[in-house]
Amino acid sequence: MGSINFEKLDKLAELSVSTGVALQQGQNLLITAPSDALPLVRLIAKHAYKAGAGLVTPFFSDSEITLARYKYASDESFDVAADWLYKGMGEAFDNNTARMAIAGDDPMLLSDMDPERVSRANKANSKAYKPARERITQFDINWNIIAWPGLAWAKRMFPDLAEDDAQTRLSEAIFMASRVNAEDPVASWKTHNQTLKEKREWLNEKDFKEIHFKGPGTDLKVGLADDHEWMGGASMAQNGVICNPNIPSEEVFTTPHALRVEGYVSSTKPLSHQGTLIDNIRVVFEKGSITDAKATKGETVLKKVLESDEGARRLGEVALVPNSSPISNSGLLFYNTLFDENAACHIALGQCYSKCFKGETNLSTSEISERGGNSSMIHIDWMIGSGEIDIDGFGKNGEIVPIFRKGEWVD
Amino acid sequence: MGSINFEKLDKLAELSVSTGVALQQGQNLLITAPSDALPLVRLIAKHAYKAGAGLVTPFFSDSEITLARYKYASDESFDVAADWLYKGMGEAFDNNTARMAIAGDDPMLLSDMDPERVSRANKANSKAYKPARERITQFDINWNIIAWPGLAWAKRMFPDLAEDDAQTRLSEAIFMASRVNAEDPVASWKTHNQTLKEKREWLNEKDFKEIHFKGPGTDLKVGLADDHEWMGGASMAQNGVICNPNIPSEEVFTTPHALRVEGYVSSTKPLSHQGTLIDNIRVVFEKGSITDAKATKGETVLKKVLESDEGARRLGEVALVPNSSPISNSGLLFYNTLFDENAACHIALGQCYSKCFKGETNLSTSEISERGGNSSMIHIDWMIGSGEIDIDGFGKNGEIVPIFRKGEWVD
Repeated sequence: MGSINFEKLDKLAELSVSTGVALQQGQNLLITAPSDALPLVRLIAKHAYKAGAGLVTPFFSDSEITLARYKYASDESFDVAADWLYKGMGEAFDNNTARMAIAGDDPMLLSDMDPERVSRANKANSKAYKPARERITQFDINWNIIAWPGLAWAKRMFPDLAEDDAQTRLSEAIFMASRVNAEDPVASWKTHNQTLKEKREWLNEKDFKEIHFKGPGTDLKVGLADDHEWMGGASMAQNGVICNPNIPSEEVFTTPHALRVEGYVSSTKPLSHQGTLIDNIRVVFEKGSITDAKATKGETVLKKVLESDEGARRLGEVALVPNSSPISNSGLLFYNTLFDENAACHIALGQCYSKCFKGETNLSTSEISERGGNSSMIHIDWMIGSGEIDIDGFGKNGEIVPIFRKGEWVD
Repeated sequence: MGSINFEKLDKLAELSVSTGVALQQGQNLLITAPSDALPLVRLIAKHAYKAGAGLVTPFFSDSEITLARYKYASDESFDVAADWLYKGMGEAFDNNTARMAIAGDDPMLLSDMDPERVSRANKANSKAYKPARERITQFDINWNIIAWPGLAWAKRMFPDLAEDDAQTRLSEAIFMASRVNAEDPVASWKTHNQTLKEKREWLNEKDFKEIHFKGPGTDLKVGLADDHEWMGGASMAQNGVICNPNIPSEEVFTTPHALRVEGYVSSTKPLSHQGTLIDNIRVVFEKGSITDAKATKGETVLKKVLESDEGARRLGEVALVPNSSPISNSGLLFYNTLFDENAACHIALGQCYSKCFKGETNLSTSEISERGGNSSMIHIDWMIGSGEIDIDGFGKNGEIVPIFRKGEWVD
């Protein structure tokens, strides 16, 4: 790991334990990570034990072993997943184990593999992962994702640099975006969380029925779900622990109404989807559903995505991010949603977040649907914000309130 | 991994898949390994998928994370173990997942840690590991252990060499002992297994009631359990797969009678037990139980071991290994039972193997006890063989049959 700043890496680890997952005294911690993130996992384990962790259990995946499977395994292999492991993880979460995930794999690892095999493996894994995923999406326990500057990922972002230099550049970009360059990252996140809290509380107080995006190639009215709640920054898991699931995170977001989106919208950054780059997306919505979709690059893949299921053509999330966010300022495309979704306002096709509703925490699928929440097997974020976007909120009594001007919060 | 011979490492991986675990078409494989054994695990995964594996799931432990726990965690941490993981592994084995374990950790990793913490962690882990351990000791599924030349382990064996050189030396010792230096290791193991089979079949046919070890400092009569069966080399798991659990393996072994061991015996090699070296052991047996125990080094630890429980003073295994075995010829002390037990005839204090009985495969605890099988929470092998040891078998009709002369098989 040649020239990654070890002191900053240590700060990132400490931040992820204290502010990210907010590990509690005596709480166990399950970490999933790429094998090359071992140096970061070791630092996290150290800080977790210092913070009073029960047991820290790391689980490493390895991209070479994944590729060996695609290269050598029989077709039947791709219908198999580690049911026993995910079921066990679900049990661990039921026993209040906290969860940390380290991102860092090559975003295009499988781009040259047989799509049929990729699809079979995804399907089998998605099914097997259900017991673990449910606990996470229901927010049963405190969790956190941070990133490790994986070499292959770094080379995708900086193809012209030597491997070591690319990794260093990516590590610095991660440190910047994760706010660990600050003297006191924990204090910096406290301030940042306060800002996000003020924004989301203001939006929740306004309780807009619709927000209106206007900019080059975009004139989109996004109706919001009944009882929608804006979220963002630190939030409380069902086990009562206030954590920051995503580091970095710059967004406030909520649930659109699946049937009330009208107009057209253009993407402002390329979308990296399972190894394919989809660029210059332009779609038209009628009654919440996409009726026309174009892209200058990756249009076939985009159209296939939209055909995943009925909900894939509708919105599951709308998120506001100022154009001056650190990630936007970096000008980098990370090919990773954890970062890229924090560079600009975005919308997501597909499944909505069940937690983005007021009042009761665990709404049933039909209760969510009644309120206008979308459901789908996909959830794909793409960027529609820029320095030229204006956003207005439409109140229930007809008032129009400016939210963003030229890509920035109005107040 | 500087100068480890990659071609031989690949042969070791292939051997472990084909001859060791004998992975079946469509069978899943669970691998446990130290994190630095990743290069070997990748090769095993490749060969496993080539052999038609369903899914290969590696689980890595990391000695630095273990040490961070001892350094930073609270006392309470040491009562916690990964129940969910071991329970899951048990389920995987119940679904016919094969198991491969990679040895390679520093044998003295915990030697400077608080013994109280070590003991608490061992106890908690041993309890949690039960669902997985039971499937392995009952031989429900095909399994295999091989070794990776871990750096810290190598430095223990070759303290005067530079790290890289020590690792190279250890890797060559592992390749030699595992018979991967042969042109065709799989064929070499076939021949080797045939030899072990002939020995164990001859011993089973003779059905000795007692075997008699004689040599410098040793005059020991080891009564054998009723219905004892000699095992060694390839054997069949309950799922019908013939595998080689240990690579290397040079022994044929069986169950002594817990009440019928008489005489005295001296160790011929030092015993490395949880970071302590116990040297020049000399013990006296009366009616199967050790009545006197001495050692020139580590005597206190030895005596503590004997006090673990009632069965700790009695024998659970007796094993025959010729003095000309490759590991004995190497003259190396590996500080690892997988290797050291294959350098000389040995006995083990504590728990017997339930599989070393004729007839029915799954004997109950009381059935084993009725036949003279010992039970204990420990199982510790130590070496009593050398080039000066003679062994005779005492038949049920009074005949005396020479088995070893000067440390070698008679026939």
